[in-house]
Amino acid sequence: MKLYTYFRSSAAYRVRIALNLKGLAYDAVPVHLLRGGGEQRQQTYRAVNPSGLVPALTDGGVTLTQSLAIIEYLEEAHPSMPLLPQDAAGRARVRALALTVAADTHPLTNLRVLQHLTGAMGLTEEVKLDWYRHWLGEGMAMLEAHLQHGGTGRFCHGDTPTIADCCLVPQVFNAQRFHVDLAPYPTIARIHAACAEIPAFQAAHPSAQPDAE
Amino acid sequence: MKLYTYFRSSAAYRVRIALNLKGLAYDAVPVHLLRGGGEQRQQTYRAVNPSGLVPALTDGGVTLTQSLAIIEYLEEAHPSMPLLPQDAAGRARVRALALTVAADTHPLTNLRVLQHLTGAMGLTEEVKLDWYRHWLGEGMAMLEAHLQHGGTGRFCHGDTPTIADCCLVPQVFNAQRFHVDLAPYPTIARIHAACAEIPAFQAAHPSAQPDAE
Repeated sequence: MKLYTYFRSSAAYRVRIALNLKGLAYDAVPVHLLRGGGEQRQQTYRAVNPSGLVPALTDGGVTLTQSLAIIEYLEEAHPSMPLLPQDAAGRARVRALALTVAADTHPLTNLRVLQHLTGAMGLTEEVKLDWYRHWLGEGMAMLEAHLQHGGTGRFCHGDTPTIADCCLVPQVFNAQRFHVDLAPYPTIARIHAACAEIPAFQAAHPSAQPDAE
Repeated sequence: MKLYTYFRSSAAYRVRIALNLKGLAYDAVPVHLLRGGGEQRQQTYRAVNPSGLVPALTDGGVTLTQSLAIIEYLEEAHPSMPLLPQDAAGRARVRALALTVAADTHPLTNLRVLQHLTGAMGLTEEVKLDWYRHWLGEGMAMLEAHLQHGGTGRFCHGDTPTIADCCLVPQVFNAQRFHVDLAPYPTIARIHAACAEIPAFQAAHPSAQPDAE
Protein backbone atom coordinates (compact mmCIF):
# COMPACT_ATOMS: atom_id res chain seq x y z
CA MET A 1 0.00 0.00 0.00
CA LYS A 2 1.05 3.53 -0.79
CA LEU A 3 -0.11 6.44 1.38
CA TYR A 4 -0.03 9.94 -0.08
CA THR A 5 0.59 11.96 3.03
CA TYR A 6 1.82 15.23 4.49
CA PHE A 7 3.35 15.14 7.94
CA ARG A 8 1.08 17.84 9.39
CA SER A 9 -2.16 16.91 7.59
CA SER A 10 -4.63 15.87 10.20
CA ALA A 11 -6.57 13.65 7.77
CA ALA A 12 -3.38 11.82 6.74
CA TYR A 13 -2.39 11.53 10.43
CA ARG A 14 -5.71 9.70 11.13
CA VAL A 15 -4.95 7.12 8.46
CA ARG A 16 -1.35 6.67 9.65
CA ILE A 17 -2.66 5.87 13.15
CA ALA A 18 -5.14 3.32 11.75
CA LEU A 19 -2.49 1.65 9.59
CA ASN A 20 -0.12 1.45 12.56
CA LEU A 21 -2.77 0.15 14.97
CA LYS A 22 -3.51 -2.64 12.50
CA GLY A 23 0.18 -3.29 11.98
CA LEU A 24 -0.03 -2.68 8.22
CA ALA A 25 3.13 -1.65 6.40
CA TYR A 26 2.89 1.10 3.76
CA ASP A 27 5.08 3.29 1.63
CA ALA A 28 4.73 6.99 2.39
CA VAL A 29 4.56 9.29 -0.65
CA PRO A 30 4.95 12.84 0.65
CA VAL A 31 2.78 15.53 -0.94
CA HIS A 32 3.94 18.97 0.16
CA LEU A 33 0.90 21.14 0.83
CA LEU A 34 2.75 24.47 0.74
CA ARG A 35 5.56 24.04 -1.78
CA GLY A 36 4.94 25.45 -5.28
CA GLY A 37 1.42 26.60 -4.43
CA GLY A 38 0.66 23.16 -3.05
CA GLU A 39 1.65 19.87 -4.69
CA GLN A 40 -1.83 18.51 -3.85
CA ARG A 41 -3.35 20.95 -6.36
CA GLN A 42 -1.06 19.92 -9.23
CA GLN A 43 -2.07 17.65 -12.08
CA THR A 44 0.22 14.79 -10.99
CA TYR A 45 -1.55 14.45 -7.69
CA ARG A 46 -5.03 15.21 -9.04
CA ALA A 47 -4.64 12.12 -11.21
CA VAL A 48 -4.55 10.21 -7.90
CA ASN A 49 -7.17 12.27 -6.03
CA PRO A 50 -9.28 14.65 -8.15
CA SER A 51 -10.20 16.59 -4.98
CA GLY A 52 -6.61 17.73 -4.61
CA LEU A 53 -6.60 16.83 -0.93
CA VAL A 54 -4.48 14.41 1.10
CA PRO A 55 -4.57 11.60 2.04
CA ALA A 56 -5.05 9.01 -0.69
CA LEU A 57 -4.22 5.34 -0.34
CA THR A 58 -3.53 2.90 -3.14
CA ASP A 59 -3.96 -0.81 -2.48
CA GLY A 60 -3.22 -2.96 -5.51
CA GLY A 61 -5.22 -1.38 -8.33
CA VAL A 62 -7.62 0.48 -6.04
CA THR A 63 -7.24 4.15 -5.16
CA LEU A 64 -9.01 5.33 -2.04
CA THR A 65 -9.66 8.85 -0.81
CA GLN A 66 -11.22 10.49 2.28
CA SER A 67 -9.62 9.49 5.58
CA LEU A 68 -12.75 7.94 7.12
CA ALA A 69 -13.60 5.96 3.98
CA ILE A 70 -10.00 4.71 3.89
CA ILE A 71 -10.12 3.62 7.54
CA GLU A 72 -13.47 1.82 7.03
CA TYR A 73 -11.87 0.02 4.07
CA LEU A 74 -8.88 -1.01 6.19
CA GLU A 75 -11.29 -2.20 8.88
CA GLU A 76 -13.13 -4.41 6.36
CA ALA A 77 -10.00 -5.72 4.65
CA HIS A 78 -8.01 -6.28 7.85
CA PRO A 79 -10.52 -6.99 10.63
CA SER A 80 -7.97 -8.00 13.25
CA MET A 81 -7.24 -5.19 15.74
CA PRO A 82 -10.76 -3.83 15.17
CA LEU A 83 -11.24 -0.06 15.20
CA LEU A 84 -15.02 -0.32 15.47
CA PRO A 85 -16.94 -2.05 18.28
CA GLN A 86 -19.02 -5.19 17.71
CA ASP A 87 -22.48 -3.74 18.41
CA ALA A 88 -24.40 -1.54 15.98
CA ALA A 89 -25.11 1.17 18.55
CA GLY A 90 -21.43 1.30 19.53
CA ARG A 91 -20.35 1.50 15.91
CA ALA A 92 -22.79 4.36 15.34
CA ARG A 93 -21.43 6.16 18.39
CA VAL A 94 -17.81 5.77 17.26
CA ARG A 95 -18.66 6.97 13.76
CA ALA A 96 -20.54 9.97 15.15
CA LEU A 97 -17.56 10.92 17.35
CA ALA A 98 -15.24 10.58 14.35
CA LEU A 99 -17.52 12.77 12.23
CA THR A 100 -17.73 15.38 14.99
CA VAL A 101 -14.04 15.91 14.29
CA ALA A 102 -13.85 15.06 10.59
CA ALA A 103 -17.02 16.85 9.43
CA ASP A 104 -17.91 19.42 12.10
CA THR A 105 -14.47 20.65 13.18
CA HIS A 106 -11.59 20.02 10.83
CA PRO A 107 -13.09 21.18 7.48
CA LEU A 108 -13.56 24.66 8.94
CA THR A 109 -9.97 24.99 10.05
CA ASN A 110 -7.95 23.26 7.37
CA LEU A 111 -5.31 24.83 5.19
CA ARG A 112 -7.44 25.69 2.15
CA VAL A 113 -9.92 27.60 4.33
CA LEU A 114 -7.22 29.51 6.21
CA GLN A 115 -5.58 30.40 2.89
CA HIS A 116 -8.93 31.63 1.53
CA LEU A 117 -9.51 33.91 4.53
CA THR A 118 -6.21 35.77 4.18
CA GLY A 119 -5.99 35.32 0.38
CA ALA A 120 -9.17 35.87 -1.66
CA MET A 121 -11.03 37.47 1.25
CA GLY A 122 -8.14 39.72 2.22
CA LEU A 123 -8.68 39.34 5.98
CA THR A 124 -5.90 39.84 8.50
CA GLU A 125 -3.79 37.17 10.20
CA GLU A 126 -5.51 38.18 13.44
CA VAL A 127 -9.00 37.52 12.01
CA LYS A 128 -7.77 34.19 10.65
CA LEU A 129 -6.53 33.15 14.08
CA ASP A 130 -9.82 34.20 15.68
CA TRP A 131 -11.64 32.06 13.11
CA TYR A 132 -9.38 29.11 13.78
CA ARG A 133 -9.77 29.27 17.54
CA HIS A 134 -13.52 29.84 17.33
CA TRP A 135 -14.27 26.74 15.24
CA LEU A 136 -11.67 24.60 16.95
CA GLY A 137 -13.22 25.57 20.29
CA GLU A 138 -16.75 24.82 19.05
CA GLY A 139 -15.64 21.43 17.78
CA MET A 140 -13.71 20.49 20.91
CA ALA A 141 -16.67 21.53 23.09
CA MET A 142 -19.01 19.30 21.02
CA LEU A 143 -16.64 16.36 21.30
CA GLU A 144 -16.15 16.87 25.04
CA ALA A 145 -19.95 16.96 25.49
CA HIS A 146 -20.41 13.72 23.51
CA LEU A 147 -17.72 12.05 25.63
CA GLN A 148 -19.82 12.61 28.79
CA HIS A 149 -21.43 9.24 28.10
CA GLY A 150 -21.35 5.79 29.67
CA GLY A 151 -19.66 4.38 26.55
CA THR A 152 -16.47 6.40 27.10
CA GLY A 153 -13.68 4.40 28.70
CA ARG A 154 -9.93 4.72 28.68
CA PHE A 155 -10.46 5.76 25.04
CA CYS A 156 -13.37 7.49 23.25
CA HIS A 157 -15.37 4.28 23.28
CA GLY A 158 -14.40 1.54 25.69
CA ASP A 159 -10.88 0.52 26.56
CA THR A 160 -9.30 -0.01 23.14
CA PRO A 161 -8.67 2.63 20.48
CA THR A 162 -11.26 3.12 17.73
CA ILE A 163 -11.69 5.32 14.67
CA ALA A 164 -12.83 8.05 17.05
CA ASP A 165 -9.38 8.11 18.70
CA CYS A 166 -7.73 8.17 15.25
CA CYS A 167 -9.59 11.48 14.77
CA LEU A 168 -9.24 12.92 18.28
CA VAL A 169 -5.45 12.77 18.44
CA PRO A 170 -4.67 14.76 15.25
CA GLN A 171 -7.27 17.35 16.27
CA VAL A 172 -5.54 17.81 19.62
CA PHE A 173 -2.22 18.13 17.81
CA ASN A 174 -3.74 21.02 15.82
CA ALA A 175 -5.11 22.62 18.97
CA GLN A 176 -1.71 22.46 20.67
CA ARG A 177 -0.01 23.87 17.58
CA PHE A 178 -2.29 26.91 17.75
CA HIS A 179 -1.84 27.21 21.54
CA VAL A 180 -5.47 26.42 22.35
CA ASP A 181 -5.90 25.78 26.08
CA LEU A 182 -7.13 22.21 26.64
CA ALA A 183 -8.30 22.84 30.24
CA PRO A 184 -11.99 23.15 29.22
CA TYR A 185 -11.79 19.69 27.59
CA PRO A 186 -10.52 17.37 30.35
CA THR A 187 -11.90 14.15 28.84
CA ILE A 188 -10.29 14.90 25.47
CA ALA A 189 -7.00 15.68 27.22
CA ARG A 190 -7.17 12.46 29.25
CA ILE A 191 -7.88 10.30 26.19
CA HIS A 192 -5.14 12.08 24.23
CA ALA A 193 -2.67 11.24 26.98
CA ALA A 194 -3.76 7.56 26.94
CA CYS A 195 -3.27 7.40 23.16
CA ALA A 196 0.13 9.09 23.38
CA GLU A 197 1.45 6.08 25.34
CA ILE A 198 0.77 3.71 22.43
CA PRO A 199 3.58 3.12 19.91
CA ALA A 200 1.14 3.09 16.94
CA PHE A 201 0.10 6.65 17.79
CA GLN A 202 3.70 7.72 18.46
CA ALA A 203 4.89 6.44 15.07
CA ALA A 204 2.07 8.32 13.30
CA HIS A 205 2.94 11.67 14.92
CA PRO A 206 3.87 14.45 12.47
CA SER A 207 7.34 14.79 14.01
CA ALA A 208 8.07 11.11 13.29
CA GLN A 209 7.34 11.35 9.54
CA PRO A 210 10.03 11.22 6.84
CA ASP A 211 8.78 14.57 5.45
CA ALA A 212 8.73 16.32 8.86
CA GLU A 213 10.29 19.77 8.89
CA MET B 1 -38.00 5.64 15.33
CA LYS B 2 -38.04 9.36 15.93
CA LEU B 3 -36.16 11.72 13.61
CA TYR B 4 -35.26 15.18 14.87
CA THR B 5 -35.36 17.14 11.65
CA TYR B 6 -35.69 20.54 10.00
CA PHE B 7 -37.20 20.66 6.53
CA ARG B 8 -34.31 22.56 4.97
CA SER B 9 -31.42 20.90 6.84
CA SER B 10 -29.35 19.09 4.30
CA ALA B 11 -28.06 16.58 6.86
CA ALA B 12 -31.62 15.72 7.98
CA TYR B 13 -32.68 15.50 4.31
CA ARG B 14 -29.98 12.83 3.73
CA VAL B 15 -31.37 10.68 6.54
CA ARG B 16 -34.98 11.15 5.35
CA ILE B 17 -33.95 9.83 1.90
CA ALA B 18 -32.24 6.79 3.45
CA LEU B 19 -35.23 6.01 5.69
CA ASN B 20 -37.59 6.28 2.71
CA LEU B 21 -35.40 4.19 0.40
CA LYS B 22 -35.41 1.46 3.04
CA GLY B 23 -39.17 1.84 3.56
CA LEU B 24 -38.74 2.59 7.28
CA ALA B 25 -41.49 4.52 9.03
CA TYR B 26 -40.52 7.25 11.50
CA ASP B 27 -42.01 10.07 13.50
CA ALA B 28 -40.68 13.50 12.54
CA VAL B 29 -39.87 15.82 15.43
CA PRO B 30 -39.30 19.28 13.94
CA VAL B 31 -36.47 21.37 15.40
CA HIS B 32 -36.69 24.94 14.09
CA LEU B 33 -33.19 26.16 13.33
CA LEU B 34 -34.07 29.86 13.23
CA ARG B 35 -36.87 30.36 15.74
CA GLY B 36 -35.88 31.75 19.16
CA GLY B 37 -32.17 31.86 18.28
CA GLY B 38 -32.36 28.25 17.09
CA GLU B 39 -34.20 25.47 18.92
CA GLN B 40 -31.23 23.17 18.18
CA ARG B 41 -29.09 25.24 20.57
CA GLN B 42 -31.53 25.03 23.47
CA GLN B 43 -31.15 22.74 26.45
CA THR B 44 -34.14 20.55 25.50
CA TYR B 45 -32.54 19.54 22.23
CA ARG B 46 -28.97 19.41 23.56
CA ALA B 47 -30.16 16.66 25.90
CA VAL B 48 -30.78 14.67 22.69
CA ASN B 49 -27.73 15.85 20.74
CA PRO B 50 -25.04 17.69 22.73
CA SER B 51 -23.67 19.12 19.46
CA GLY B 52 -26.83 21.18 19.02
CA LEU B 53 -27.11 20.11 15.38
CA VAL B 54 -29.82 18.23 13.48
CA PRO B 55 -30.48 15.46 12.71
CA ALA B 56 -30.69 12.97 15.56
CA LEU B 57 -32.48 9.64 15.42
CA THR B 58 -33.78 7.64 18.36
CA ASP B 59 -34.36 3.94 17.89
CA GLY B 60 -35.62 2.23 21.03
CA GLY B 61 -33.26 3.37 23.77
CA VAL B 62 -30.48 4.38 21.40
CA THR B 63 -29.86 7.97 20.32
CA LEU B 64 -27.86 8.45 17.14
CA THR B 65 -26.30 11.60 15.73
CA GLN B 66 -24.38 12.59 12.56
CA SER B 67 -26.21 11.86 9.31
CA LEU B 68 -23.62 9.46 7.89
CA ALA B 69 -23.32 7.50 11.14
CA ILE B 70 -27.13 7.26 11.27
CA ILE B 71 -27.33 5.98 7.69
CA GLU B 72 -24.58 3.38 8.33
CA TYR B 73 -26.58 2.23 11.37
CA LEU B 74 -29.76 1.92 9.29
CA GLU B 75 -27.77 -0.01 6.69
CA GLU B 76 -26.57 -2.49 9.33
CA ALA B 77 -29.93 -2.82 11.09
CA HIS B 78 -32.01 -3.01 7.90
CA PRO B 79 -29.83 -4.51 5.19
CA SER B 80 -32.57 -4.94 2.59
CA MET B 81 -32.53 -2.17 -0.03
CA PRO B 82 -28.77 -1.78 0.49
CA LEU B 83 -27.29 1.71 0.25
CA LEU B 84 -23.71 0.43 0.02
CA PRO B 85 -22.35 -1.90 -2.68
CA GLN B 86 -21.21 -5.45 -1.93
CA ASP B 87 -17.48 -5.03 -2.68
CA ALA B 88 -15.03 -3.30 -0.35
CA ALA B 89 -13.63 -1.01 -3.07
CA GLY B 90 -17.14 0.02 -4.09
CA ARG B 91 -18.10 0.72 -0.50
CA ALA B 92 -14.98 2.84 -0.06
CA ARG B 93 -15.83 4.79 -3.22
CA VAL B 94 -19.41 5.45 -2.09
CA ARG B 95 -18.25 6.55 1.36
CA ALA B 96 -15.64 8.86 -0.20
CA LEU B 97 -18.27 10.46 -2.46
CA ALA B 98 -20.58 10.92 0.52
CA LEU B 99 -17.78 12.52 2.55
CA THR B 100 -16.88 14.83 -0.34
CA VAL B 101 -20.30 16.36 0.30
CA ALA B 102 -20.68 15.80 4.02
CA ALA B 103 -17.14 16.74 5.12
CA ASP B 104 -15.62 18.82 2.31
CA THR B 105 -18.60 20.87 1.15
CA HIS B 106 -21.53 21.17 3.51
CA PRO B 107 -19.75 22.06 6.80
CA LEU B 108 -18.37 25.21 5.15
CA THR B 109 -21.76 26.43 3.99
CA ASN B 110 -24.14 25.47 6.75
CA LEU B 111 -26.25 27.81 8.82
CA ARG B 112 -23.93 28.23 11.82
CA VAL B 113 -21.05 29.27 9.55
CA LEU B 114 -23.14 31.75 7.55
CA GLN B 115 -24.46 33.23 10.81
CA HIS B 116 -20.90 33.56 12.13
CA LEU B 117 -19.74 35.45 9.00
CA THR B 118 -22.42 38.14 9.23
CA GLY B 119 -22.72 37.98 13.04
CA ALA B 120 -19.51 37.76 15.08
CA MET B 121 -17.29 38.64 12.09
CA GLY B 122 -19.49 41.54 10.97
CA LEU B 123 -19.08 40.80 7.26
CA THR B 124 -21.66 41.90 4.69
CA GLU B 125 -24.43 39.81 3.13
CA GLU B 126 -22.52 40.14 -0.15
CA VAL B 127 -19.32 38.63 1.33
CA LYS B 128 -21.40 35.84 2.88
CA LEU B 129 -22.90 34.96 -0.51
CA ASP B 130 -19.46 35.01 -2.14
CA TRP B 131 -18.26 32.61 0.57
CA TYR B 132 -21.25 30.34 0.04
CA ARG B 133 -20.85 30.18 -3.72
CA HIS B 134 -17.08 29.74 -3.51
CA TRP B 135 -17.19 26.67 -1.26
CA LEU B 136 -20.27 25.22 -2.86
CA GLY B 137 -18.55 25.54 -6.24
CA GLU B 138 -15.34 23.95 -4.92
CA GLY B 139 -17.31 21.06 -3.48
CA MET B 140 -19.45 20.50 -6.57
CA ALA B 141 -16.33 20.58 -8.78
CA MET B 142 -14.66 17.93 -6.58
CA LEU B 143 -17.73 15.72 -6.70
CA GLU B 144 -18.10 16.15 -10.48
CA ALA B 145 -14.43 15.18 -10.90
CA HIS B 146 -14.83 12.05 -8.75
CA LEU B 147 -17.88 11.04 -10.80
CA GLN B 148 -15.73 10.85 -13.96
CA HIS B 149 -15.07 7.22 -13.08
CA GLY B 150 -16.11 3.84 -14.45
CA GLY B 151 -18.08 3.10 -11.29
CA THR B 152 -20.61 5.86 -11.96
CA GLY B 153 -23.85 4.62 -13.48
CA ARG B 154 -27.37 5.94 -13.49
CA PHE B 155 -26.56 6.98 -9.92
CA CYS B 156 -23.29 7.97 -8.20
CA HIS B 157 -22.20 4.34 -8.04
CA GLY B 158 -23.90 1.84 -10.29
CA ASP B 159 -27.58 1.75 -11.13
CA THR B 160 -29.20 1.85 -7.71
CA PRO B 161 -29.08 4.69 -5.19
CA THR B 162 -26.44 4.63 -2.47
CA ILE B 163 -25.41 6.79 0.48
CA ALA B 164 -23.60 9.00 -2.05
CA ASP B 165 -26.91 9.88 -3.72
CA CYS B 166 -28.46 10.55 -0.29
CA CYS B 167 -25.77 13.27 0.03
CA LEU B 168 -25.75 14.56 -3.56
CA VAL B 169 -29.45 15.43 -3.75
CA PRO B 170 -29.65 17.73 -0.68
CA GLN B 171 -26.45 19.45 -1.82
CA VAL B 172 -28.02 20.19 -5.22
CA PHE B 173 -31.12 21.49 -3.44
CA ASN B 174 -28.86 23.97 -1.61
CA ALA B 175 -27.14 24.96 -4.83
CA GLN B 176 -30.47 25.65 -6.53
CA ARG B 177 -31.72 27.61 -3.55
CA PHE B 178 -28.70 29.90 -3.86
CA HIS B 179 -29.06 30.11 -7.68
CA VAL B 180 -25.79 28.33 -8.40
CA ASP B 181 -25.57 27.39 -12.09
CA LEU B 182 -25.36 23.60 -12.45
CA ALA B 183 -24.08 23.71 -16.06
CA PRO B 184 -20.43 23.06 -15.03
CA TYR B 185 -21.55 19.88 -13.21
CA PRO B 186 -23.43 17.83 -15.85
CA THR B 187 -22.95 14.46 -14.16
CA ILE B 188 -24.26 15.78 -10.85
CA ALA B 189 -27.25 17.33 -12.66
CA ARG B 190 -27.98 14.08 -14.51
CA ILE B 191 -27.84 11.98 -11.33
CA HIS B 192 -29.96 14.52 -9.49
CA ALA B 193 -32.62 14.23 -12.22
CA ALA B 194 -32.56 10.41 -11.97
CA CYS B 195 -33.04 10.59 -8.18
CA ALA B 196 -35.87 13.11 -8.52
CA GLU B 197 -37.95 10.47 -10.31
CA ILE B 198 -37.91 8.17 -7.27
CA PRO B 199 -40.76 8.49 -4.74
CA ALA B 200 -38.40 7.97 -1.77
CA PHE B 201 -36.45 11.07 -2.80
CA GLN B 202 -39.62 13.04 -3.54
CA ALA B 203 -41.09 12.30 -0.10
CA ALA B 204 -37.85 13.45 1.58
CA HIS B 205 -37.81 16.82 -0.23
CA PRO B 206 -37.94 19.87 2.07
CA SER B 207 -41.20 21.05 0.47
CA ALA B 208 -42.88 17.74 1.40
CA GLN B 209 -42.09 17.98 5.13
CA PRO B 210 -44.69 18.72 7.82
CA ASP B 211 -42.59 21.69 9.03
CA ALA B 212 -42.09 23.17 5.52
CA GLU B 213 -42.66 26.91 5.31
